[in-house]
Amino acid sequence: MINLYTWATPNGRKISILLEELGLDYAVSPVDLGKMEQFSAHFSAISPNNKIPAIINTEPDRDPVVIFESGAILTYLAEKYGQFLAPHGQARYNALEWLHWQTSALGPMLGQLGFFAVRSQEKSPLAIARFTEEAERLFSVMEERLANHTYLAGEEYSIADIACYPWVQAATVYFKEALKGSFDTKPALQRWLKRIGERPAVKLGMAVPTL
Amino acid sequence: MINLYTWATPNGRKISILLEELGLDYAVSPVDLGKMEQFSAHFSAISPNNKIPAIINTEPDRDPVVIFESGAILTYLAEKYGQFLAPHGQARYNALEWLHWQTSALGPMLGQLGFFAVRSQEKSPLAIARFTEEAERLFSVMEERLANHTYLAGEEYSIADIACYPWVQAATVYFKEALKGSFDTKPALQRWLKRIGERPAVKLGMAVPTL
Ligand SMILES: N[C@@H](CCC(=O)N[C@@H](CS)C(=O)NCC(=O)O)C(=O)O
Ligand SMILES: N[C@@H](CCC(=O)N[C@@H](CS)C(=O)NCC(=O)O)C(=O)O
Repeated sequence: MINLYTWATPNGRKISILLEELGLDYAVSPVDLGKMEQFSAHFSAISPNNKIPAIINTEPDRDPVVIFESGAILTYLAEKYGQFLAPHGQARYNALEWLHWQTSALGPMLGQLGFFAVRSQEKSPLAIARFTEEAERLFSVMEERLANHTYLAGEEYSIADIACYPWVQAATVYFKEALKGSFDTKPALQRWLKRIGERPAVKLGMAVPTL
Repeated sequence: MINLYTWATPNGRKISILLEELGLDYAVSPVDLGKMEQFSAHFSAISPNNKIPAIINTEPDRDPVVIFESGAILTYLAEKYGQFLAPHGQARYNALEWLHWQTSALGPMLGQLGFFAVRSQEKSPLAIARFTEEAERLFSVMEERLANHTYLAGEEYSIADIACYPWVQAATVYFKEALKGSFDTKPALQRWLKRIGERPAVKLGMAVPTL
């Protein structure tokens, strides 16, 4: 049985989407970030960086596997259950490069934009300008890729799309103001967003955790 | 033959270190970031996010493989040449989780600290405080891990150490001021830094590209 430690945020939802896509049975342990539960002794032992998501797989046929970092968890699940990541060749590394692009760039930069442009009461025009520009640059990179390919890794839906979807979806709502009009000029991104958002597993995964 | 597109920065050096560790023959194509060569049409086709590192492997026994994102390149080389990443089990995902921790947190957060605390002429106290705190938090997470394990993934040297080394090494020099005293109180981190830095392949990889 897989136990998913998560919260109602894009990084957590990557994992619930993939678990739904794989049709796996899993338990959800909400880690209430508002109550600082990510710093509890119990959760620190699972996720030493004190962030969600994390998983424990206690399938009886093997030793428990404990993993933090959404990119590592997506790779583990895709490898163990043999879907959404090609086993070798250019297709495999296209998926992994766009996965790392999400975890190293799209995620952290939108995270910083959220802090400086939305959450922080004190405003730093320098930081707001920097992260607005970087977010726009990243969405343009994605638009160009999706103008030439159905999915990020190429013609197959993969863990790279699953990693990006909850972030892009949240950005269209959360950064409506900060990134005014930026999505309107990106038809390929819009098509991709609609195509992924219509998948039944994505709808189910996006609704986790139920609070 | 592997062609490495790189520059004299931590993300580039991760790859030259691994190539040296693997004892592979490779060519180096410097991409001069100061001259904005990362935006050339030639390099954009290889690395659509316009960042180094990237590689092309034109080994005659297979189709060329083109990869950007340091985390994906490290994974590719480790998988293809069967070293520095366990093929399965907890050891594999420990390496991948610490690899993703480097690419998603340590790298981007130190990058932002470099911009706000060092490179930018305009100073934002809010941003400097945010990224100083986050860098200190991340080094504490690393210290705790290394106080209990020889290497980041456990008892085996892996691509997670290779990803972190050039960043931590650069940070001890570049952020001497911004992170005053922070490294002095981290004996396990210091030991790890010394142990990795003494590896002959690491010394060779850190000297790439020769300009
Ligand atoms: N690189 C990590 C990032 C995880 C992350 O930032 N998680 C956030 C929620 S989306 C979190 O747990 N924040 C709590 C905190 O920072 O204290 C991953 O991809 O898993
Ligand atoms: N997530 C990327 C980051 C790569 C990166 O930031 N590269 C820097 C040099 S260390 C770069 O090419 N900067 C040029 C630019 O931003 O225009 C990776 O790990 O490969």
